[in-house]
Amino acid sequence: MDHSIDAERLVDLRREFHQRPEPAWREFWTTCRIVDELERLDVTEIHVGPDALATERRAAVPDAEELEFWFERARSAGARESTLERLEGGNTGAVAVLERGDGPTVALRVDIDGLPIEESTDDDHAPAAEGFRSRHEGTMHACGHDAHATIGLGVLEAVAESDFDGTFKVIFQPSEERIAGGEPVAKSGHLDDVDALLAVHVGLNYPTGTVVAGIEGSLAVRQMAVTFAGAPAHAGARPNEGRNANQALATATTNLHGIAHHSDGITRVNVGVIEGGTAVNVVSEQAYMEAEVRGGTTELMEYMYANTRRIIQSAAEMHDCEFEIEPQGSAPSIESDDRLSDVVATVADDHPSVDRILESERLAGSEDAAHLMTEVQDRGGIAAYVGIGTDHPTGHHTSTFGIDEASLEIGIDILTGTVLEIGEAGV
Amino acid sequence: MDHSIDAERLVDLRREFHQRPEPAWREFWTTCRIVDELERLDVTEIHVGPDALATERRAAVPDAEELEFWFERARSAGARESTLERLEGGNTGAVAVLERGDGPTVALRVDIDGLPIEESTDDDHAPAAEGFRSRHEGTMHACGHDAHATIGLGVLEAVAESDFDGTFKVIFQPSEERIAGGEPVAKSGHLDDVDALLAVHVGLNYPTGTVVAGIEGSLAVRQMAVTFAGAPAHAGARPNEGRNANQALATATTNLHGIAHHSDGITRVNVGVIEGGTAVNVVSEQAYMEAEVRGGTTELMEYMYANTRRIIQSAAEMHDCEFEIEPQGSAPSIESDDRLSDVVATVADDHPSVDRILESERLAGSEDAAHLMTEVQDRGGIAAYVGIGTDHPTGHHTSTFGIDEASLEIGIDILTGTVLEIGEAGV
Amino acid sequence: MDHSIDAERLVDLRREFHQRPEPAWREFWTTCRIVDELERLDVTEIHVGPDALATERRAAVPDAEELEFWFERARSAGARESTLERLEGGNTGAVAVLERGDGPTVALRVDIDGLPIEESTDDDHAPAAEGFRSRHEGTMHACGHDAHATIGLGVLEAVAESDFDGTFKVIFQPSEERIAGGEPVAKSGHLDDVDALLAVHVGLNYPTGTVVAGIEGSLAVRQMAVTFAGAPAHAGARPNEGRNANQALATATTNLHGIAHHSDGITRVNVGVIEGGTAVNVVSEQAYMEAEVRGGTTELMEYMYANTRRIIQSAAEMHDCEFEIEPQGSAPSIESDDRLSDVVATVADDHPSVDRILESERLAGSEDAAHLMTEVQDRGGIAAYVGIGTDHPTGHHTSTFGIDEASLEIGIDILTGTVLEIGEAGV
Amino acid sequence: MDHSIDAERLVDLRREFHQRPEPAWREFWTTCRIVDELERLDVTEIHVGPDALATERRAAVPDAEELEFWFERARSAGARESTLERLEGGNTGAVAVLERGDGPTVALRVDIDGLPIEESTDDDHAPAAEGFRSRHEGTMHACGHDAHATIGLGVLEAVAESDFDGTFKVIFQPSEERIAGGEPVAKSGHLDDVDALLAVHVGLNYPTGTVVAGIEGSLAVRQMAVTFAGAPAHAGARPNEGRNANQALATATTNLHGIAHHSDGITRVNVGVIEGGTAVNVVSEQAYMEAEVRGGTTELMEYMYANTRRIIQSAAEMHDCEFEIEPQGSAPSIESDDRLSDVVATVADDHPSVDRILESERLAGSEDAAHLMTEVQDRGGIAAYVGIGTDHPTGHHTSTFGIDEASLEIGIDILTGTVLEIGEAGV
Repeated sequence: MDHSIDAERLVDLRREFHQRPEPAWREFWTTCRIVDELERLDVTEIHVGPDALATERRAAVPDAEELEFWFERARSAGARESTLERLEGGNTGAVAVLERGDGPTVALRVDIDGLPIEESTDDDHAPAAEGFRSRHEGTMHACGHDAHATIGLGVLEAVAESDFDGTFKVIFQPSEERIAGGEPVAKSGHLDDVDALLAVHVGLNYPTGTVVAGIEGSLAVRQMAVTFAGAPAHAGARPNEGRNANQALATATTNLHGIAHHSDGITRVNVGVIEGGTAVNVVSEQAYMEAEVRGGTTELMEYMYANTRRIIQSAAEMHDCEFEIEPQGSAPSIESDDRLSDVVATVADDHPSVDRILESERLAGSEDAAHLMTEVQDRGGIAAYVGIGTDHPTGHHTSTFGIDEASLEIGIDILTGTVLEIGEAGV
Repeated sequence: MDHSIDAERLVDLRREFHQRPEPAWREFWTTCRIVDELERLDVTEIHVGPDALATERRAAVPDAEELEFWFERARSAGARESTLERLEGGNTGAVAVLERGDGPTVALRVDIDGLPIEESTDDDHAPAAEGFRSRHEGTMHACGHDAHATIGLGVLEAVAESDFDGTFKVIFQPSEERIAGGEPVAKSGHLDDVDALLAVHVGLNYPTGTVVAGIEGSLAVRQMAVTFAGAPAHAGARPNEGRNANQALATATTNLHGIAHHSDGITRVNVGVIEGGTAVNVVSEQAYMEAEVRGGTTELMEYMYANTRRIIQSAAEMHDCEFEIEPQGSAPSIESDDRLSDVVATVADDHPSVDRILESERLAGSEDAAHLMTEVQDRGGIAAYVGIGTDHPTGHHTSTFGIDEASLEIGIDILTGTVLEIGEAGV
Repeated sequence: MDHSIDAERLVDLRREFHQRPEPAWREFWTTCRIVDELERLDVTEIHVGPDALATERRAAVPDAEELEFWFERARSAGARESTLERLEGGNTGAVAVLERGDGPTVALRVDIDGLPIEESTDDDHAPAAEGFRSRHEGTMHACGHDAHATIGLGVLEAVAESDFDGTFKVIFQPSEERIAGGEPVAKSGHLDDVDALLAVHVGLNYPTGTVVAGIEGSLAVRQMAVTFAGAPAHAGARPNEGRNANQALATATTNLHGIAHHSDGITRVNVGVIEGGTAVNVVSEQAYMEAEVRGGTTELMEYMYANTRRIIQSAAEMHDCEFEIEPQGSAPSIESDDRLSDVVATVADDHPSVDRILESERLAGSEDAAHLMTEVQDRGGIAAYVGIGTDHPTGHHTSTFGIDEASLEIGIDILTGTVLEIGEAGV
Repeated sequence: MDHSIDAERLVDLRREFHQRPEPAWREFWTTCRIVDELERLDVTEIHVGPDALATERRAAVPDAEELEFWFERARSAGARESTLERLEGGNTGAVAVLERGDGPTVALRVDIDGLPIEESTDDDHAPAAEGFRSRHEGTMHACGHDAHATIGLGVLEAVAESDFDGTFKVIFQPSEERIAGGEPVAKSGHLDDVDALLAVHVGLNYPTGTVVAGIEGSLAVRQMAVTFAGAPAHAGARPNEGRNANQALATATTNLHGIAHHSDGITRVNVGVIEGGTAVNVVSEQAYMEAEVRGGTTELMEYMYANTRRIIQSAAEMHDCEFEIEPQGSAPSIESDDRLSDVVATVADDHPSVDRILESERLAGSEDAAHLMTEVQDRGGIAAYVGIGTDHPTGHHTSTFGIDEASLEIGIDILTGTVLEIGEAGV
């Protein structure tokens, strides 16, 4: 293809991102670095932070102290001040727009956040051996979002240099790992005119050379933070004066896992995090839990959610406690449109480094790109979630996860080719 | 004392009652037999069945078929028809009134029901050896209420033959074992003018010759029947369409046992009987449980009951079920008045067969005489619960329970003496 | 086709069965009636009761009193004494063998038991309107096994009258509704030489004229009766001396419903029946539950079962109780062999009354024909579970379930055609 | 009395302690400050840190980082280096011995630790108004142990200045609030020769001028830290591969609160602190809880503990988890010897500021002085737990707790008087 860009620069860029992983809503340095690159290119518009998000739709935003810590870390690492100050309060991410004529509007979404995982120092782990291991101890790009950010910039550059006719947007989405960035981006307005949306993920247990043209059937998900508030009492002297938040939480936990299975398909529930009480001899006044429900379809997830709400309320009332359910991340189920994945497959078929094309595969987990895809599909557009295989030594979300950097170029080629093809042929 | 009556006749009467034990609200034959005796005596009024009860306050009444069975059994056994027909619907029991001048109104309460226990056929068991074992298989006077009925009649006869000045009532109360007869009698009106109330129990692990002048501190209790109503569904094909009454009951059971202990004293809870579901492969549509709460004081019991109600409601709601709590038996805590037990003690002190007098002892269980005592005490009267020791080979509520018939006369003497003393000295 | 038999007689026979439904292991009259018909035909061997079963493999057998009741009811209804006495102890069912040359051995399995459902008396309900409603109040053929028994006899007669070359067996299996008859029949020896096995079900929400050539993927299932044994105690006086079986059962129930969902497919769990305790004021000494687990595959069911065993054991130990798990019914998952369903489809395709043929459909519930099918398949044979559509006004297992009697003949035709085809073409 | 010491100095000393509260096992500065005072007096022996404790019996010791923090804080606040270094690893506390002839060995135990409570800044709160509020934010002497340390020193000084004949020890015990210091001190050897042991507490809702000569019946207690270890898994993709520690903890929590009440007296249970899981979408691998049981007698507490162990083990096994129970604090029930409290009462009776003497009162909570008292009593000595009334505006363990400093002198007088009386009269 004629839109190839400098492979070495791509690798450098990916390694730069890799060394500065930032968790959800804390992608301060990363966003600034992306904007630096965008300004180097000849893009029409750059929307940053609050201009790229429906801010009020954000969930799972860390507290002020945590945000401040990462904000200052970004500043120390040389993040450009003029960009940085627009990201205050954890309004991270960016949208780049390239206007090139009257053709269709195509968008590519990439996610940019890291994970709270300590990266391996093992010699077998390439980033450790080759000197680009995470500089943020306890945080790691262990799911390839460093590659995604790089691919997003690479495709943008390639399209910019092509004779593409239409509008092309690249969405650098924050907070995917908390499935909390998808909805604010989906409702930002930037998707309102999109005719075709592509999302991309590297790896997913597919090796370099494999392309999945359209991923389907991720689980719809809702996550929530739940607080039970009771009353404290000395457990020896006045137990009856307490209202026991730990008992409320325990009853909720046990019963949440007992929601009836659904005959229409897959359901899931998990009480992942629990915490309650202040002292061994005090009836627990407060308890906290983080829970999630999933479903093979959005309806199945909503079935679980309705039951979850009722169980939490009843468990609180049973132990005379108040409760609050604060929504955290969520995502509907992914459905890729055949019309768009067919284009991906056709483009991939022509690529010399692609040796296997899968039309459609299921995704075991959840993905908040689904919010963006649903938004586009509900407005009459089409969308596809594309898998770009990459050899990875260990599973996603492990301390020794890594990618085959050769797949960066493949990903850029396939996505660029798809964008150009749509520009030419229309949706 | 000069009011002694024929000891042999007492023993015969007690054995007659012993052979025809009738459980709660089914004391048809027993009531008729008592009324026969009352008519033999020169009493002023006899109130039978609905005239002796606030009928609408009854709880734990058996179903029509069960009542019919015992009604017909009583008829077959020769119960007098004119009395029997007044007891229809399980309105058992009677109140006898003896008016003898302007002195104080004194009452004695005795209970008359049997237990659903199969009586021993062992040769060591006196009723079996001497031919007066229960004729009603599966039912037994295993708590001495046959003796209580006899004592009630004996005291009535003795007082009738004395120069007592005042009004004397004997209350033959049904359904003590279900602690369900006390409240209907307490609210019948017959206690409204009572100045001093005596209740009596034989045994209680005290041997013949011991008298407890005033029993205290029985546990207040409330019993209830709870129904959870959900919706059935095929457990394999459509589990999500069910609303699982068994899960509601299980959650209620577990959490009821977890009500916080109270710093003010003894509390108890028990889910004694559970039953739910129709088939192994059907989500349970209906579940039933019988539960009780107790407390060292009425307040402590009410603390438990308030928590119980809330837990049951929440457990039902948690599993999307309806629920109903039907009150069964109940009783407040017993407190004997020193003023009255002092009289009992004084009388007992004079009795040649009494070798030990206990002023005040705790009762481990519950007793619905407490309803009558509280009623009298709330209206300004006094009350005492008197224990008449009797050698009993095994514990109450066992198949080999029995009494020392010598204690019948002692009981009659002590209680008669107390009644006469109050008649003379006033309250 | 040339093997049609008298349609009117079929209808009469089905209505005769319909009027005398007998639940699992109580099919005394039904078995006798079937044997009467078999003797009318020229069959080679008739195996009855214990000769048709691996008796020791039976589960969910009712108690002696219940068996006696139905045994006497069958006798009163005119069941032939010589057959009846061979069925004692609930060894119901029969196997008919027709030997006709050296061709393959083909078998047809039909089930014959009724359900504990009260049949409707509504005028819209054909059996009520036309005078063949169940004579056994509270019991009903509400799943079409009356039709199955009739079809079994009809096919046998048709094959007997044909020039079939081989051996043909019809298995009249008891106790399908408790999924407890399949395994004893599978292990009886009668399937050891079977080359091709057919099983059949009418209805299943398919209308008259539809044929399902091969049903797949029923849920594997295991049912069990669980007993928890603790120790009784007076709940007010000595609660700590009890070992509470109701609490053990409640904890088991709640946690059984909380077994983790499995990523490989469908799982189910149900605690369908619970029962415990003797009195409201006694700590429960004994509790009983019936539970089942299911899975989309036999492996998934076994995953659930392993967890179930562990949870029950731990719940018992948690409350210091003993426990026992008694296996009840079970069935593996059904897989029909394409080779055999293709034959069914071909035969159905030729039938004038068949307007729709479904190659393969999933069965939502469980079926103990799976034991027979697995037995044959494990020995190298083939099997298919065939659905014969019938218009049914309401769902299976409802009081107004009914069939379109026209489907009897269709079923006989299709199955006979398939048997003959195999006899001709081989397996 | 003639052994009075400078009241002003006592107040200063108490306020000095008040400003530097240190929680359990972190009493570095406090111990050093006490040793400074001890060296000022003419005591025979001073045992510090590991010489005052059976170190290996300590429980609830904080981690190294926490210890280091308080160690350095003590150093910064001027704790004497030579003492401080002997306390490393949290071996706090001291024992002072005064040998004065051949008379009996008498000991006084005072506790010295603070609480993790933020002290009030309210103007009504004396320490805030008068400038001696806690300098350690989040930590407070909210139970009067600052007064206890002062009283200990005061009594020591008074006895030293008297003509006491015998041996007198003052034990400055750490970690009472975690009921974790009592056992290591009891087993240190310093109590082996003690004939009479006094322990003291100010306040307890008794006003200045009241003395409780012998406190009884505190609740016996055991506290424990429990860990459940399961296995993590992605809650959406592979839930069945997890072993859910949060479910184990929830089941344990619910069932621990459901241990049967005991007919012999008071029992308590509390799951005070819970914590589990790492992320909302991961099956929880690890869960932690802190729980305690109590009993009106040591036997009742052990009944609860035996049940607790069984329930925790079963809950772990139910969810296929491992578990560990690490003992934390514990204490038997307190029983004061009449012989010793009679002496206290006699001494108090002579004191001009004492207006009310209570012979014996119950303590609602638990107290690890019970370990020391039991140790002495088991060896044939006598012990009494003495209450010194003090006006306190709000309850113990609240942010506005305070004492009436006039009670310092009263306490010193009563205890000194008792020590001298025993020295004179013998035990």
